Amino acid sequence: MALLLVRDDREYLLERGERLETDLGILEVPEDAAAGEVVTTHLDEGFTVRELRGPDCFNHFERTGAPMMPRDVGLIMGHTGVSESDTVLDAGTGTGVLAAYMGRAGADVITYEQDAEFADVARENMELAGVDEQVDVRTGDVTENLDVGPVDVLTLDTEDAATVVEHAADLLTPGGCLAVYSPFVEQAREVARTARGVGLEGVETLETIQREMDFDDRGSRPSTAGVGHTGFLTFARRE
Amino acid sequence: MALLLVRDDREYLLERGERLETDLGILEVPEDAAAGEVVTTHLDEGFTVRELRGPDCFNHFERTGAPMMPRDVGLIMGHTGVSESDTVLDAGTGTGVLAAYMGRAGADVITYEQDAEFADVARENMELAGVDEQVDVRTGDVTENLDVGPVDVLTLDTEDAATVVEHAADLLTPGGCLAVYSPFVEQAREVARTARGVGLEGVETLETIQREMDFDDRGSRPSTAGVGHTGFLTFARRE
Amino acid sequence: MALLLVRDDREYLLERGERLETDLGILEVPEDAAAGEVVTTHLDEGFTVRELRGPDCFNHFERTGAPMMPRDVGLIMGHTGVSESDTVLDAGTGTGVLAAYMGRAGADVITYEQDAEFADVARENMELAGVDEQVDVRTGDVTENLDVGPVDVLTLDTEDAATVVEHAADLLTPGGCLAVYSPFVEQAREVARTARGVGLEGVETLETIQREMDFDDRGSRPSTAGVGHTGFLTFARRE
Amino acid sequence: MALLLVRDDREYLLERGERLETDLGILEVPEDAAAGEVVTTHLDEGFTVRELRGPDCFNHFERTGAPMMPRDVGLIMGHTGVSESDTVLDAGTGTGVLAAYMGRAGADVITYEQDAEFADVARENMELAGVDEQVDVRTGDVTENLDVGPVDVLTLDTEDAATVVEHAADLLTPGGCLAVYSPFVEQAREVARTARGVGLEGVETLETIQREMDFDDRGSRPSTAGVGHTGFLTFARRE
Repeated sequence: MALLLVRDDREYLLERGERLETDLGILEVPEDAAAGEVVTTHLDEGFTVRELRGPDCFNHFERTGAPMMPRDVGLIMGHTGVSESDTVLDAGTGTGVLAAYMGRAGADVITYEQDAEFADVARENMELAGVDEQVDVRTGDVTENLDVGPVDVLTLDTEDAATVVEHAADLLTPGGCLAVYSPFVEQAREVARTARGVGLEGVETLETIQREMDFDDRGSRPSTAGVGHTGFLTFARRE
Repeated sequence: MALLLVRDDREYLLERGERLETDLGILEVPEDAAAGEVVTTHLDEGFTVRELRGPDCFNHFERTGAPMMPRDVGLIMGHTGVSESDTVLDAGTGTGVLAAYMGRAGADVITYEQDAEFADVARENMELAGVDEQVDVRTGDVTENLDVGPVDVLTLDTEDAATVVEHAADLLTPGGCLAVYSPFVEQAREVARTARGVGLEGVETLETIQREMDFDDRGSRPSTAGVGHTGFLTFARRE
Repeated sequence: MALLLVRDDREYLLERGERLETDLGILEVPEDAAAGEVVTTHLDEGFTVRELRGPDCFNHFERTGAPMMPRDVGLIMGHTGVSESDTVLDAGTGTGVLAAYMGRAGADVITYEQDAEFADVARENMELAGVDEQVDVRTGDVTENLDVGPVDVLTLDTEDAATVVEHAADLLTPGGCLAVYSPFVEQAREVARTARGVGLEGVETLETIQREMDFDDRGSRPSTAGVGHTGFLTFARRE
Repeated sequence: MALLLVRDDREYLLERGERLETDLGILEVPEDAAAGEVVTTHLDEGFTVRELRGPDCFNHFERTGAPMMPRDVGLIMGHTGVSESDTVLDAGTGTGVLAAYMGRAGADVITYEQDAEFADVARENMELAGVDEQVDVRTGDVTENLDVGPVDVLTLDTEDAATVVEHAADLLTPGGCLAVYSPFVEQAREVARTARGVGLEGVETLETIQREMDFDDRGSRPSTAGVGHTGFLTFARRE
């Protein structure tokens, strides 16, 4: 697992042994660096060492597109209860934020990414997050790889998610949970329809609006900036 | 960990060895019952055995008040990244859904509940969820027990959360995350003010509106039923 | 125009000269009753006379379905600017709340209702609201009556609104405004597509979420009750 | 009333007889210009003449601050039912968009603006909208001018709205409506508390979230851009 070296607004995600030229001098991360220690540059400027947490994955992973936001990752984890010793089949790895979170919660995750270069980046991201043993990033199309044993959780962030949902009843263990992220209404509708069609229970599509509150001397109010739509989340369970 | 015995709309959360009279006959859970097996009543009616998942905690825990909803649990997990090997200090256990989720994700949780009876119920709930080794439910007021070593995550669902937040910089490890659930604007405002006052970073208070989508033959639309407010969530990190 | 006779939680919408048996005695509305006066029952119980306002139309009109809510009526008036001396073509009269509001703002409204009984009720409602001279409720299908002169505003609350929108460029004066109420996404999408197709400007579909705030001794928060979806509103103008 | 001269994306709000140099030549508005006509520049470029509508007030009024948005104007009109022959007392004129809309709906409006320069601009805006006979813009503090006869509607967009609401029961006719626009929770709370304290009925504070829908070839979804908070609206009526 990589480490964060932090000082005021500067945050660098570095591997042990890595060396970085900064405006405060050259920073070398000792092989035995541990969270809480201070590492100094050759100009004697100190950086605090931190372990990576989930939200840091969102902020520091190399991106191959817009990564899933912590709120959507969290909603998927809350509604599926991904946890230690779970097996998860994930498709549409992208940057890998969701996969990393699930790996960090102790789940064994197989995740499919069709774009070979994106998959390479995702693999590096899993190493940075220290979950490369938990998360197996496979290059390929999940729809051609549905002969996996039953999994506890199936998470999909792909355009053709409905094609996979057709097989969800076979892919999931009894009580297992499905979560699908769909930017568009039409996709969410098709996913929900398919989930009901294959006999899944508790099918629901949720839309989430999250706003920041502004607190200042004049008073309290929801932000005037507005937070936009991300995606619809469809959840279901195998009976 | 207890097991769910499921048949159509019936779901019973039972311990191994437990016996329940149902309208379909007497159900006895074998000591060696395993997920996926079918257990039959003395009238030969079958129930499928399932392991408990996070959302089942919300549905089946004995309640001592309105438990935190999966969406809010998930948002807290998404924004704090609670994961394996984390240490968590939690206050306002209540029914214990949040604590159970965090325990299930591999964290070591100490949680304070002032009401002794509620704490007893929460302890039983942790046993049902199989996380009684991970989650230490303590009866008492967290504000009198702040001499704990630094923790990775501090989660608060108490009226006087701001009193604890005053100590958050000492309670958290560098990079550690704070999450506070506040039903009212005034509480959230006070929490955010206090968090800024003690030097926490990235202080933000979020409000979440979640709606279900209705998909039927006439078309697609957000539910006309409406989903109400639960709470404001304030997040911050120690630098 | 009918009058409201009001006492505490009792509110009766009555015509001048009308007689009503109430639990507080028989109430007879004098022909010369005027707002602000008190009318007494034969048991000498007083009721205050009020003139009808817009929101009273929503509360007191005889209903032939779910009437459009004041918020949606208001949004339509705000986004189209319906005002004195405007001419309006309206379709899908229903209970007639929107038509009555527009009439009360001084517009000349022609409104089509396909169901003859509903149209009769709407006509009575216009009389109650004192706008029967402003609002001409016609029984029939607006799509068969599109040979009207150009109007300032075109308001549609019908399933086949898109069929009318196809003619909107001919129906509207330059700068004239279109407003369409659509419960479902698919309808709103079709309306917006059609409006763009016939060259209308500023086409936008808005969704509105309105929540009540709860203020009590514990603090301030959005209502936990939730307010559901009503409809999508699509607005556009003829250049 | 001023006229809009429109051509493609160009829209000029001009008085009859006014002369404007444009990039398409000099535009002179004939004294007898009428809606629907085409006026040509000295370079023979045509502009269509339009009458001003409500939304044009929002777009073309000279601004002395952020004007109230058409959605909030509309919600106030929907919830109060402002209409022909109503008398309205308004405070916090600002740019005057709300006052102009109410005047256009036929109401007689007295509106107070403390800033003398802002009041001058508002007066010019009322002339542009052709409602200078309906809307009397007075320079001053409404709290020092509460000896007006009862009005049908009282609309407030001022920081100290609660001070005026204390007198609302005297200011309003029976059944008359109060509407207060408050950017902050604390203001809205104080207004609602005061309204209840002076015996107004049906006191409710509403918050409105309005989002635009994006319809494109990929599908339909709420805008990812987000629309921010404007203000809380508190409504109440005198019994």
